[in-house]
Amino acid sequence: MTPLTLTPIRDVPLIQPGDDLPALILEGLKKSSLDIEDGDIIVVTQKIVSKAEGRLVNLTQVQVSERAKKYAAICEKDPRFVELVLQESNEVLRCRPGTIIVEHRHGFVCANAGIDHSNVKGPWGNQEDWELLLPKDPDVSAEKIRAFIQAQTQKKIGVLIIDSHGRAWRIGTVGVCIGIAGFPAVVDMRGQSDMFGYKLRVTQVAAADELAAAASLIMGQATEHIPVVHVHGFPYPLRESHFPELVRPKDLDMFR
Amino acid sequence: MTPLTLTPIRDVPLIQPGDDLPALILEGLKKSSLDIEDGDIIVVTQKIVSKAEGRLVNLTQVQVSERAKKYAAICEKDPRFVELVLQESNEVLRCRPGTIIVEHRHGFVCANAGIDHSNVKGPWGNQEDWELLLPKDPDVSAEKIRAFIQAQTQKKIGVLIIDSHGRAWRIGTVGVCIGIAGFPAVVDMRGQSDMFGYKLRVTQVAAADELAAAASLIMGQATEHIPVVHVHGFPYPLRESHFPELVRPKDLDMFR
Repeated sequence: MTPLTLTPIRDVPLIQPGDDLPALILEGLKKSSLDIEDGDIIVVTQKIVSKAEGRLVNLTQVQVSERAKKYAAICEKDPRFVELVLQESNEVLRCRPGTIIVEHRHGFVCANAGIDHSNVKGPWGNQEDWELLLPKDPDVSAEKIRAFIQAQTQKKIGVLIIDSHGRAWRIGTVGVCIGIAGFPAVVDMRGQSDMFGYKLRVTQVAAADELAAAASLIMGQATEHIPVVHVHGFPYPLRESHFPELVRPKDLDMFR
Repeated sequence: MTPLTLTPIRDVPLIQPGDDLPALILEGLKKSSLDIEDGDIIVVTQKIVSKAEGRLVNLTQVQVSERAKKYAAICEKDPRFVELVLQESNEVLRCRPGTIIVEHRHGFVCANAGIDHSNVKGPWGNQEDWELLLPKDPDVSAEKIRAFIQAQTQKKIGVLIIDSHGRAWRIGTVGVCIGIAGFPAVVDMRGQSDMFGYKLRVTQVAAADELAAAASLIMGQATEHIPVVHVHGFPYPLRESHFPELVRPKDLDMFR
C-alpha cells in the first residue's frame, strides 16, 4: 500500500468572478512538479469555486423579510446577513445569541449557511458589506473540474470541494465534503469480515469527509494561499459519486 | 510547505494483553524504511492500545443492573453489553432500537461507548462473548508511547490515538482523536487576519481530529493490518496537549 500524500498547490492566482477555474487549477497543478496519475484526487476549497461563480452578494442590496428580522433578533446578527442565511437554507435547526445553525439547501447542516466574509473583496463600495455564498451546486462544480482535467490529462481522477464545519459535541472545525465527482463519498463495508471472521459492526466509512479533513489540515484556515491540494494514494477505487450520499436522512437523524 | 505524508506501518505484530506496545510500535517504525524526524506524529488505532492494556471483558462475567435491562429493552441489544456501555459512560444521550449513544467517561460522545467486537479474540470460552473496552486513559497511553519513542530516537514527536465515530447529520464514520500527546489537539486562530485584513470568523481548528480522519482513511475499518500510521509534514508546531481540549462543554453544546 502506497503512502497517502497531500501536496499543497500554491500556484493558483487570486480568483475573480468569471475566471475559468478548471483551467487555472490545471495550470497550478502543472506548475508544481507533480505527476497527475490515475486515481489521484484534486481537493479544492469552496471559496475559490464560489468566487469563480460570482457568488458575491452586497448586504446593501438585500431585502430583509420579517422572518429574518425575528431570527436576527435572537442570534444578534445583521438582519441582512440572516436574510441571506435563510435564503440559502431549508430549515433553521438552532438559533441562539451568536449562532445560527441551518440545514443548507444542499442538505448539510452548518452555521451561517456557509456564508463567509474572510478573504472576500467586492467590486465596489464598503468592503465590509460583501458576503460570499457557497457554490450554486458543488457537485456540478466538482464534475466540471474533473471533466476538464481528465480530458486534458487523460487520467482518471476525482475532485472534492471542501468547506470547514463545526460539529456537535466537539470543539473546533474540520474540513468536510460539500461537493464530489468521480470517487466514493461513502465506502460501504457491509458483508466484509474482520480478521477472525466476525461481520463488521461499522459498515459505512465517510471516505470523502476523511479526505476533506486531511486536505483541510494543510490548507489551513487563514487564507487562500493554498486553495488546492493534490492527493496521491487514495485507498479506494474511483467511481461515480454524489454529495447526497453523505446526508443522513432527517428521519434517521437523532440530533436535529 | 512540505507535503503531508501518511505512511501505513504494517510491521506491528498482533497485540496481546501485557505486550510492550511502545517498543513494538518503535520496532515496526524501524522495520519500515522511514526516518523519524522532529515534528512527526505517530497515529495508533485504539484497538491495539486496548488490547495491550488487557481491556477484554467476557460477557458471561457481567452483572446486569436494572438500569441496563431498561436501556437494553429499548435498544434491543444484549443487556450484558449494555451494562458494559453504561459502566463506561457518564450519560446516555439517545437510546433507540439498534442504537445507544452515550457520553463516554472520557468526555466524547459516541455509540456503544466505543466498545468493539471485531478483531477481538479472548483467552477462553465462546469467542462471541468477548468485548473490547476503550483504553483506560488514552492521553496517558499516548504519552507513554511518545515518551518511549522520544527517549529512544531523540526526536521530538507527537502521538495520536484514534477511533472511528459516527456523526450527527452525516452518514458514515470518520476517524477522531481520543488520546493525544505532544501536539496540538486544537489550533487557535483567534486574532489572526485574512489576506484583506479581516479578523477570521472561524477561530478554532480541530487539528488532531483532522489528522485522525486522514490516518483513518488509510488504516481502513476492516482489520488491524495497519494499526499504526507515520505522519510527516504536520503543519503546526508541536506542544503539550490533552484530549479534553476537544470536548465542547455541555452547556455550550446545542445538540445533546
